Amino acid sequence: MSFDFRIADLSLHEAGRHQIRLAEHEMPGLMALREEYAAEQPLAGARIAGSLHMTVQTAVLIETLTALGAEVRWASCNIFSTQDEAAAAVVVGPHGTVEDPQGVPVFAWKNETLEEYWWAASQIFAWPGVDSDASAGANMILDDGGDATMLVHQGAAFEAAGAVPSATEDDPEEYRVVLETLRASLAENPSRYTGVSQAIRGVTEETTTGVTRLSQMARDGELLFPAINVNDSVTKSKFDNKYGIRHSLPDGIMRATDVLLGGKVAVVAGYGDVGKGAAEALRGQGSRVIVTEIDPINALQAAMDGFQVIRMDDAVSQGDVFITTTGGKSIITAEHMRAMKDKAIVGNVGHFDNEIDMAGLAQLPGVEKVEIKPQVHEWRFADTGRSIIVLSEGRLLNLGNATGHPSFVMSSSFANQTIAQIELFRKTAPGYTGEDGYTTDVHVLPKVLDEKVARLHLGALGAELTELTKEQAEYLGVDVAGPYKPEHYRY
Amino acid sequence: MSFDFRIADLSLHEAGRHQIRLAEHEMPGLMALREEYAAEQPLAGARIAGSLHMTVQTAVLIETLTALGAEVRWASCNIFSTQDEAAAAVVVGPHGTVEDPQGVPVFAWKNETLEEYWWAASQIFAWPGVDSDASAGANMILDDGGDATMLVHQGAAFEAAGAVPSATEDDPEEYRVVLETLRASLAENPSRYTGVSQAIRGVTEETTTGVTRLSQMARDGELLFPAINVNDSVTKSKFDNKYGIRHSLPDGIMRATDVLLGGKVAVVAGYGDVGKGAAEALRGQGSRVIVTEIDPINALQAAMDGFQVIRMDDAVSQGDVFITTTGGKSIITAEHMRAMKDKAIVGNVGHFDNEIDMAGLAQLPGVEKVEIKPQVHEWRFADTGRSIIVLSEGRLLNLGNATGHPSFVMSSSFANQTIAQIELFRKTAPGYTGEDGYTTDVHVLPKVLDEKVARLHLGALGAELTELTKEQAEYLGVDVAGPYKPEHYRY
Amino acid sequence: MSFDFRIADLSLHEAGRHQIRLAEHEMPGLMALREEYAAEQPLAGARIAGSLHMTVQTAVLIETLTALGAEVRWASCNIFSTQDEAAAAVVVGPHGTVEDPQGVPVFAWKNETLEEYWWAASQIFAWPGVDSDASAGANMILDDGGDATMLVHQGAAFEAAGAVPSATEDDPEEYRVVLETLRASLAENPSRYTGVSQAIRGVTEETTTGVTRLSQMARDGELLFPAINVNDSVTKSKFDNKYGIRHSLPDGIMRATDVLLGGKVAVVAGYGDVGKGAAEALRGQGSRVIVTEIDPINALQAAMDGFQVIRMDDAVSQGDVFITTTGGKSIITAEHMRAMKDKAIVGNVGHFDNEIDMAGLAQLPGVEKVEIKPQVHEWRFADTGRSIIVLSEGRLLNLGNATGHPSFVMSSSFANQTIAQIELFRKTAPGYTGEDGYTTDVHVLPKVLDEKVARLHLGALGAELTELTKEQAEYLGVDVAGPYKPEHYRY
Amino acid sequence: MSFDFRIADLSLHEAGRHQIRLAEHEMPGLMALREEYAAEQPLAGARIAGSLHMTVQTAVLIETLTALGAEVRWASCNIFSTQDEAAAAVVVGPHGTVEDPQGVPVFAWKNETLEEYWWAASQIFAWPGVDSDASAGANMILDDGGDATMLVHQGAAFEAAGAVPSATEDDPEEYRVVLETLRASLAENPSRYTGVSQAIRGVTEETTTGVTRLSQMARDGELLFPAINVNDSVTKSKFDNKYGIRHSLPDGIMRATDVLLGGKVAVVAGYGDVGKGAAEALRGQGSRVIVTEIDPINALQAAMDGFQVIRMDDAVSQGDVFITTTGGKSIITAEHMRAMKDKAIVGNVGHFDNEIDMAGLAQLPGVEKVEIKPQVHEWRFADTGRSIIVLSEGRLLNLGNATGHPSFVMSSSFANQTIAQIELFRKTAPGYTGEDGYTTDVHVLPKVLDEKVARLHLGALGAELTELTKEQAEYLGVDVAGPYKPEHYRY
Repeated sequence: MSFDFRIADLSLHEAGRHQIRLAEHEMPGLMALREEYAAEQPLAGARIAGSLHMTVQTAVLIETLTALGAEVRWASCNIFSTQDEAAAAVVVGPHGTVEDPQGVPVFAWKNETLEEYWWAASQIFAWPGVDSDASAGANMILDDGGDATMLVHQGAAFEAAGAVPSATEDDPEEYRVVLETLRASLAENPSRYTGVSQAIRGVTEETTTGVTRLSQMARDGELLFPAINVNDSVTKSKFDNKYGIRHSLPDGIMRATDVLLGGKVAVVAGYGDVGKGAAEALRGQGSRVIVTEIDPINALQAAMDGFQVIRMDDAVSQGDVFITTTGGKSIITAEHMRAMKDKAIVGNVGHFDNEIDMAGLAQLPGVEKVEIKPQVHEWRFADTGRSIIVLSEGRLLNLGNATGHPSFVMSSSFANQTIAQIELFRKTAPGYTGEDGYTTDVHVLPKVLDEKVARLHLGALGAELTELTKEQAEYLGVDVAGPYKPEHYRY
Repeated sequence: MSFDFRIADLSLHEAGRHQIRLAEHEMPGLMALREEYAAEQPLAGARIAGSLHMTVQTAVLIETLTALGAEVRWASCNIFSTQDEAAAAVVVGPHGTVEDPQGVPVFAWKNETLEEYWWAASQIFAWPGVDSDASAGANMILDDGGDATMLVHQGAAFEAAGAVPSATEDDPEEYRVVLETLRASLAENPSRYTGVSQAIRGVTEETTTGVTRLSQMARDGELLFPAINVNDSVTKSKFDNKYGIRHSLPDGIMRATDVLLGGKVAVVAGYGDVGKGAAEALRGQGSRVIVTEIDPINALQAAMDGFQVIRMDDAVSQGDVFITTTGGKSIITAEHMRAMKDKAIVGNVGHFDNEIDMAGLAQLPGVEKVEIKPQVHEWRFADTGRSIIVLSEGRLLNLGNATGHPSFVMSSSFANQTIAQIELFRKTAPGYTGEDGYTTDVHVLPKVLDEKVARLHLGALGAELTELTKEQAEYLGVDVAGPYKPEHYRY
Repeated sequence: MSFDFRIADLSLHEAGRHQIRLAEHEMPGLMALREEYAAEQPLAGARIAGSLHMTVQTAVLIETLTALGAEVRWASCNIFSTQDEAAAAVVVGPHGTVEDPQGVPVFAWKNETLEEYWWAASQIFAWPGVDSDASAGANMILDDGGDATMLVHQGAAFEAAGAVPSATEDDPEEYRVVLETLRASLAENPSRYTGVSQAIRGVTEETTTGVTRLSQMARDGELLFPAINVNDSVTKSKFDNKYGIRHSLPDGIMRATDVLLGGKVAVVAGYGDVGKGAAEALRGQGSRVIVTEIDPINALQAAMDGFQVIRMDDAVSQGDVFITTTGGKSIITAEHMRAMKDKAIVGNVGHFDNEIDMAGLAQLPGVEKVEIKPQVHEWRFADTGRSIIVLSEGRLLNLGNATGHPSFVMSSSFANQTIAQIELFRKTAPGYTGEDGYTTDVHVLPKVLDEKVARLHLGALGAELTELTKEQAEYLGVDVAGPYKPEHYRY
Repeated sequence: MSFDFRIADLSLHEAGRHQIRLAEHEMPGLMALREEYAAEQPLAGARIAGSLHMTVQTAVLIETLTALGAEVRWASCNIFSTQDEAAAAVVVGPHGTVEDPQGVPVFAWKNETLEEYWWAASQIFAWPGVDSDASAGANMILDDGGDATMLVHQGAAFEAAGAVPSATEDDPEEYRVVLETLRASLAENPSRYTGVSQAIRGVTEETTTGVTRLSQMARDGELLFPAINVNDSVTKSKFDNKYGIRHSLPDGIMRATDVLLGGKVAVVAGYGDVGKGAAEALRGQGSRVIVTEIDPINALQAAMDGFQVIRMDDAVSQGDVFITTTGGKSIITAEHMRAMKDKAIVGNVGHFDNEIDMAGLAQLPGVEKVEIKPQVHEWRFADTGRSIIVLSEGRLLNLGNATGHPSFVMSSSFANQTIAQIELFRKTAPGYTGEDGYTTDVHVLPKVLDEKVARLHLGALGAELTELTKEQAEYLGVDVAGPYKPEHYRY
């Protein structure tokens, strides 16, 4: 492969610039950070290897990181999710041209192969000169799902072992590609990732999945550098999940089907933050919402919020629309789908596509799949004469049938990312002696920074915060500047 | 022009068939009427000239009319609104082929010129043999906005006068085309529309605009045949307006802008049925809704429903999103737009595009219009440095940025149309002597038929109606079968 | 009986004055009318015989009428509904004392017998000198339910016949008392009500029941003077019914039972204006609401608003709370109640107490009634071991368990009454020659006066109305000052 | 004082029994625990000193504790909150009589003096024989606010010091009474509370305030026995606070004022759980809700939920109703109140009465306080001519003007209490060697017990929980039986 970093069709950069400009208006958190830190340049010296969906919102994140002094190289964390015009615009940069791009190296395009994906992942560590001097390379990772972090850890481990093992039969196809990528690396430079792992000061991780991986490594003593869990900031998990889905779920269903939600029975599996946002959105459209739950506390919340709570086995004959939000698996089985009403709509906004048993569906005898339009398929059951409509092949419909979370929600998530990068870069600096330094473990951001992210978004909504008087703060036993709540507070 | 009725690209008919099949599932009112009247064929002998947006939903209407025995010719009532695949599918018919179409003559395609539009309008009266024998032509009109009815009335009037007048300078461009069309007709056949007007038994009209025209003609003694005002059936105006907009407004804004509605200030001008649906939808997405109103009763309703009611002059600096729903004009002026916050979103779901003063906006000194994508434009103000986003050029955004009212809502409207056609065709039959015959005036459907339309849609939503006992009905002074409410009841 | 008009315990007047003063603040419509008409005194010369629940809100109405120049005599229209402190305060007046009352003669107290009730009803026509000169007596009636109007009509009819008939066995007990009252009157003065009926210029009627009676008399040619139907003003029926119930239904249930409504299944029978307000209130408390309906249009509205619509027979086993809102009878039967879950709560906010079959309940074998507290009874079923809780013995629970409609809602109703009195008094004046005079029929207020009532309430809510420009008004074809909507508009 | 435990008017016991029976139906959590543990008797041997509002709901708690084997003595934790009929019913017991009470010693009545209150508090430790043998006395405390726990700790401390100090001038009046109570105790028995403190195995605490006290003692090394923080169970804090207030706030306002909430502007100070419940309830009644907040995260939640967020200084001129929910102080100052609109309503559902500066209000020059009815006062400002309505003198209006949290909500809180008593009693038993024993610190209940409490309440709401398959549980990395979420999950 002979890619240089101009992998996107750079002629798209103008369209991307328009979108970035509009997105900036909807991302007040990031824009406020640019302003606050313009003089200080807290990320000067930071070389960030980023792996996160290369969208318009991410473009605003990247350009915020560089505005704060960082150097950045970027890949997407998903083979489908790159918006090519955003990638192009980031490469060209606000002041560059196609002939003379002045932006950031981006290794991402829509519809990558697995080989291309892992090649791109390795490119974000391939800083000029890094192979001869690891300290010239990345010193920070910004990760979504943990692939970049995993590459460094596995790479270093195999280098320590002196060999990359062969894939076994049970390994998924993708892992085979990872092994090949690392085998090639080992051949090129037998201590590449060892050096990289030593140069990295820390990682900030976006998702539950990535945090789970990090926590396992920390527990097993395998984690090589400190990590900040961005996912569990309140302003990430309680905003992105609830308010993002409230927007993007009806958006996705409407774009996909144009079916009136009013008066319909909508079955929402799961009443966590995503389920709460989904149920609110559907009720707001006049649907009658039924909830299924396995956790009695969430189930009781659903009941107290006025929703009927029953089992999927019982709901399956009543629903017109079925939405999974759980993160679990086999929530809707093939038998469930076969028993649904004619033209029932089935979609997932939870996590993996196995929340809906798509594999089982495809194996039903005589079942027929008809594409109505891209990401909208009718599955016809030979025996019953009925059919159902499945959105985005069971993958996240808010991404597949709509455009995912809106910019404002991502501003909150990405302001956490940016602040986490600053925090971690500053407090892992050689010579930093503060008591609040970061150990090689998985941390969440201090509550006061979580509050700061919220603070940065209030102005754009016209919300005006009250300031505690000193006397009031003392009465409550808190500082005027926060944090205001105990750690276990649930919001 | 050498069009025959195969004006659409008939190769689109398969895609259209898929969509029609899915729409049929969402149009239980029409499907129930097909079943109910399959044997009786109440429209046998009806030759319907139809003028209404040639969409997928209209395709289901057309095929319902033919299933009930009618012959049909069709044009669209708007130069932009035809969905070509729907038109093709109707022409080919469920059992025809491109080579051997067996459906209905349709004279409509997306993006007609005004000349083409009025040519198409005249074709729905051009039944084979009609010029020699008017009774071989259309005997019913199904109209949306009144263009077909107007053509017949004006044609007959000019034929009586023996000449078509010239357009004056003040006449709009479109009226000039109408006059040319009728001038050509007069030359071809000096009594064409006189004959047509005598053969027509009546018209059923879909919209407020069309009803207003009909009422003026009735008042002035110029109406030539009975009319049924479908628009003011409860199951049309209170459903289509409120529940249709509740769906299609957020759909349109989301598709156009991807902007998070949660936390935003949304200003809704007007709190009639459309405004009520708009306000409910936006609140359901977590917006804070401000209402402007000129009618104190509607204003009080808005206040009692928990919305802030202020004037546009005061709202203009607070809103992030502005939606007009009034049917009035100059609701949002150019000065209003110039005073809005940066990147405010402005759109219309009311009636004409003059609710928002687009003409005034374009004339502001130094204003610049940038297309973000089709139907989404940024207007930049030279002096303030701010810009706003205007959807669908000020025309109906739920049509321009989304796909208009969903099928289920149109099922209710079109079931009214179908029942009105049956009612009018039956009770204007030569020899009909019932006391409930239709005079040459504008009528609404009897309440019991309005109730019937509602009844046809309950099953699809799983709603089960209670039946009055005879004793209960007597106590209330109503018939067990309805109607259940006095005429003035407001629902 | 030797009552003079000081029938209430006048020592209560101070407590009543406090309540009146607070109510005045919540009745901006009436207070605005006092201000608007202070100089003009449009009711100067009016002598109003009023029959309407003698509550604090009615006190504000009465004192508004007198502030506009009227003389007033008052009775309650219900034997239970008088608030004695309000009656006392009205009698004493704002500037009088117990020894020297300077207010209005009020013939009403809490818990009257039927004899006392009809005695009081006749007293509102017993103006000094009226027996010798009918023109010295009442010239206007303000009625609620039609009892005062009926008394005059029946009295005059019996006087014409020269005799009062005997009650038959089928006549209800109350009618026997009416006949006795009129028999005594006939003996005293054989032309009393004939004179009264001739002196009366018109009546303004508050309720559906009263309007139904008036309409029947008009249809049968028996109506003796013009009537204005206040009930069907939009600002009465769509406000009082919906927004009043939204407040007073949860208020009543909570005061009666203290049962958490959140998470409960609430069954609302009927989805008219009262049902809509009830369903909204219960959903607002986190109940899951099920609706039963006989009218398919209302049923479809309920479904589109997200409520499940089923039959009472099916709902009866699911509900925790059952509320009737229909105006019909036997909506909840004894068998329904026997089948309900243990401790289900049953109440009525519709009309008469036969919406719930209380008689049938009492006749169930072995049923036992236990008073939990006044207006809250547990009914125990011997055979099932279960019991239910019935509120206010099946009568209106918002009155029996709470305090009925709040002042603000009554301000809207009573502003309609006041305006109707002015309108009718002015346009039935001897010598009035306007074309808009009132015939001896049942009329509704002109829409522009309905709009005026709304207008009077906007300021108190901080709502600011937009005024049409002349150009906008012309475009809409309306007057700048209203009315703004066609007569059939449904709001 | 010569009280024996028959302090209440025992003749009230029948009324109390009715209420307890109805409350039992609404407290399914407690009733389920009675059933589950009927055989096991896990509290056999427990002698519980309880200090918690002596209401009907607490009666069900007390009788649940005894049904599980405990002996109990009880006082209220507030001088006003006892419901005398509940106290009487608990003393008499379900099977006793006034002459032969067989229930539980209760030392509580409505409207105690401070002296009586602290006498009663000391009585719950005065078990027969305890002064000679501390192990015959209480071995568990069930506390609300920490008064009982404080009495034991202070008593033991003073006994160690050999003297009770004198109150200083700065000490509040109440502390003086505490000191006197303990001084008398020291005189009677110089080692009473030392013995008690050694016999107590642990305390379960209901409230934030009590938990704060406990945490301070634990931090300072002064805590004498283990404590379970019941307050921070999800099924306590997120249910009681949010859903309880959603019910009891409108209940209190309505009972106090009968003012229509629809259309009014309601200002809610604080958007924690209580504020969320308050805002939801008021919106559900058609109020327009404005929120004030000091915490940016909660402020952002309010904005995203569609509420306007401004400062009290700016809100004060807009609101019709003001509700504090913060737990802070001086949220509404006297100056705020003076600037409010005429007849604005002011109330508190937060914590102490200093959220509203009642002291400052009373000191405004010329201010006049008029009692409208008990717990409802009009405060008139001499200079402005306006007045405001203050509910419950600034204390908790949902208690003062209504009846506090409904039984169902308390069932959830009290099931936590009961389970905490079982858990703590079992795992502090002499000889208990499990690793999950309780140290002398402040603990929260294990999440799986929190989930159990939720589970116990689902059936009563008809909610049906889904059970994970073993495969699904493994996929999620949880046990089929729970707990299902990580500790930091926020619900």
